[in-house]
Amino acid sequence: MSSQAPHPTLLIPGPIEFDDAVLQSMSHYAESHVGPGFVKTFGETLSLVRKLFQSTSPAAQPFVISGSGTLGWDIVASSLIEKGENALVLHTGYFADSFASCLETYGANATQLKAPVGDRPSFEQIEQALQEKPYKVITITHVDTSTGVLSDIKRVAEIVRRVSPETLVVVDGVCSVGCEEIAFDAWDIDVVLTASQKAIGCPPGLSILMLSGRALDRFKTRQTPPSSYYASLGNWLPIMQNYENFKPSYFATPPTQLVHALHTTLSQITARPMAERFAVHAQASDRVKAAVAELGLTQLAANPENQAHAMTAIWLPEGLAPPDVLPGLLKRGVIFAAGLHKEVATKYIRFGHMGVSVTSGRQDVDNAIAALKEALTEAKQAKGL
Amino acid sequence: MSSQAPHPTLLIPGPIEFDDAVLQSMSHYAESHVGPGFVKTFGETLSLVRKLFQSTSPAAQPFVISGSGTLGWDIVASSLIEKGENALVLHTGYFADSFASCLETYGANATQLKAPVGDRPSFEQIEQALQEKPYKVITITHVDTSTGVLSDIKRVAEIVRRVSPETLVVVDGVCSVGCEEIAFDAWDIDVVLTASQKAIGCPPGLSILMLSGRALDRFKTRQTPPSSYYASLGNWLPIMQNYENFKPSYFATPPTQLVHALHTTLSQITARPMAERFAVHAQASDRVKAAVAELGLTQLAANPENQAHAMTAIWLPEGLAPPDVLPGLLKRGVIFAAGLHKEVATKYIRFGHMGVSVTSGRQDVDNAIAALKEALTEAKQAKGL
Repeated sequence: MSSQAPHPTLLIPGPIEFDDAVLQSMSHYAESHVGPGFVKTFGETLSLVRKLFQSTSPAAQPFVISGSGTLGWDIVASSLIEKGENALVLHTGYFADSFASCLETYGANATQLKAPVGDRPSFEQIEQALQEKPYKVITITHVDTSTGVLSDIKRVAEIVRRVSPETLVVVDGVCSVGCEEIAFDAWDIDVVLTASQKAIGCPPGLSILMLSGRALDRFKTRQTPPSSYYASLGNWLPIMQNYENFKPSYFATPPTQLVHALHTTLSQITARPMAERFAVHAQASDRVKAAVAELGLTQLAANPENQAHAMTAIWLPEGLAPPDVLPGLLKRGVIFAAGLHKEVATKYIRFGHMGVSVTSGRQDVDNAIAALKEALTEAKQAKGL
Repeated sequence: MSSQAPHPTLLIPGPIEFDDAVLQSMSHYAESHVGPGFVKTFGETLSLVRKLFQSTSPAAQPFVISGSGTLGWDIVASSLIEKGENALVLHTGYFADSFASCLETYGANATQLKAPVGDRPSFEQIEQALQEKPYKVITITHVDTSTGVLSDIKRVAEIVRRVSPETLVVVDGVCSVGCEEIAFDAWDIDVVLTASQKAIGCPPGLSILMLSGRALDRFKTRQTPPSSYYASLGNWLPIMQNYENFKPSYFATPPTQLVHALHTTLSQITARPMAERFAVHAQASDRVKAAVAELGLTQLAANPENQAHAMTAIWLPEGLAPPDVLPGLLKRGVIFAAGLHKEVATKYIRFGHMGVSVTSGRQDVDNAIAALKEALTEAKQAKGL
């Protein structure tokens, strides 16, 4: 039973429903950010981030910084690329365009490899692009929240290591960390950047990153100074290293209460094998995808191997737009999101199925499927379809 | 009575003790960041920020962004100055050095006007410096948390408008907003940047700024694009304007639970005249300063007109360092901070007296004064002083 006030179930692709214990851990009394109590909490939290990424490499380094997930792009763009260097951006939706803008803001040359809406660039296209010029980084949106398209980051990393071994593999894992498999060390990934409010199950406000030793080496051997202050790895690296060694350290005041929430949710998540968590999300996803098909609907991600496991982007029937359907869902106690991909935003809706809504034996997904069926029928009748 | 677990009283110059209602407001159930409930909360919060700054100018604009207070420096440095332009940094402690580093990271020429530890540059020096070259911005740390030195931002703004009217007056108000008088419109200030965790009484994790119409105009007429993505005013301005007009808007997911906490604390603060709040802080400060003098101790800020009203930086007796005194305070249930100004960090301690500890009829300040007296006696005895 939840201690939270009655409310419609939030099933958008983040923020998501909160676990009671996570929410309550933010009510911890005030602590000094450099006092032993908080230093221990923050240090442990950083170690838990390693477990979240299934990483045991001492050369790798987790970062937890006050900010939105977006801040992770600035960290990559200002710390890992220098002016005039090339970035290959694999485009599977809205978030690649934004990441490319961020890279260009800091002077990188961003080349986007685009796929049609709902698809992803082929492995052949990626390999060919990597052969055309030297790229300092390749960026991959693991799951694009605007389309629900899943990328195969393991396979892309393999291609990079074979064709262009010096290129840093940067994964935007905002909508994948905590629900899609990521074996950071084993897959030889260089950066995963993410946010707290999706499958990690923490309130929004934390930018979370994992960096490989290779990425840190590349930062340390830059020719020019980092082009940001708040987003510079150089300012944060000693802070993270000190806290993880239970030593107080100061660059900017950490968001103490959110760190408590992250500590709680990561303790819950890592108490069981990550493989089990991924499987639970895959099972829930299969149920959702089957129900969507049964309703005669299709997904933006048409190919099953491109489909994310923690969200589903669903084309609406011809003649219906999100405002025709979302109020009917809300009336039934369920909140979905409207479309976000600019070209097609008015034609689809997004259903997030991650975190406590799928891991805690709650009926959220089944209720949402039933509500979707009713709301669609109602909307079609209202439109005379 | 507090519902928080028993704990030592946090009397550092931020983060500070939390009001129960503020803390509990973070336990709000999950909401969509673009749903009507949260849009209303965020919109109202932005309007409350205007009241906090005693501003009614429609041209001025509040910003509330996920990040530490430090992020405000990047926003100024990347959005309001262009490469090669001049910044005059008034130095009253640690934070001016850091702000200058941030400005230089983005290509500004930062000139520091330094005063001896505990003092501030004179009005004559400031006027002379402004006459020497054209400055795009002047930055003033309203209260430097490392020294407890208060700057007279009203007087500095007057000098700027007379001598160099185009120069933007940028106030670092991290340790002053909510406890020191700021009349944003009346004093003709261009930027105040602050953080949530000091006299505003909210947990850390929000970068809060107020910008004048003049500052926004200067941003809009830049010759070059902003040199940051996450810290660009251009990305945030439409978002803030939309939310304040109760329209959903998306650039990066806002920190929903911290915004609830900010809404609660600003509602409390602005429910009474700001002048009353400043007076309560001044009275508490007078009590602390008198007690410090009675103990035979002096402050880093030697001149009463330079002394902050929400914190006191206290020189320790010769022969004592912070580790000799802070444990004795903790044993008595009180947490003070060690020194922070690099040159003299081992020679002083800092006592924060702001927010609920002084506004809610709590005995925190009296208890801390008594604890300080005992802890000093004990430390001197232990050292045979």
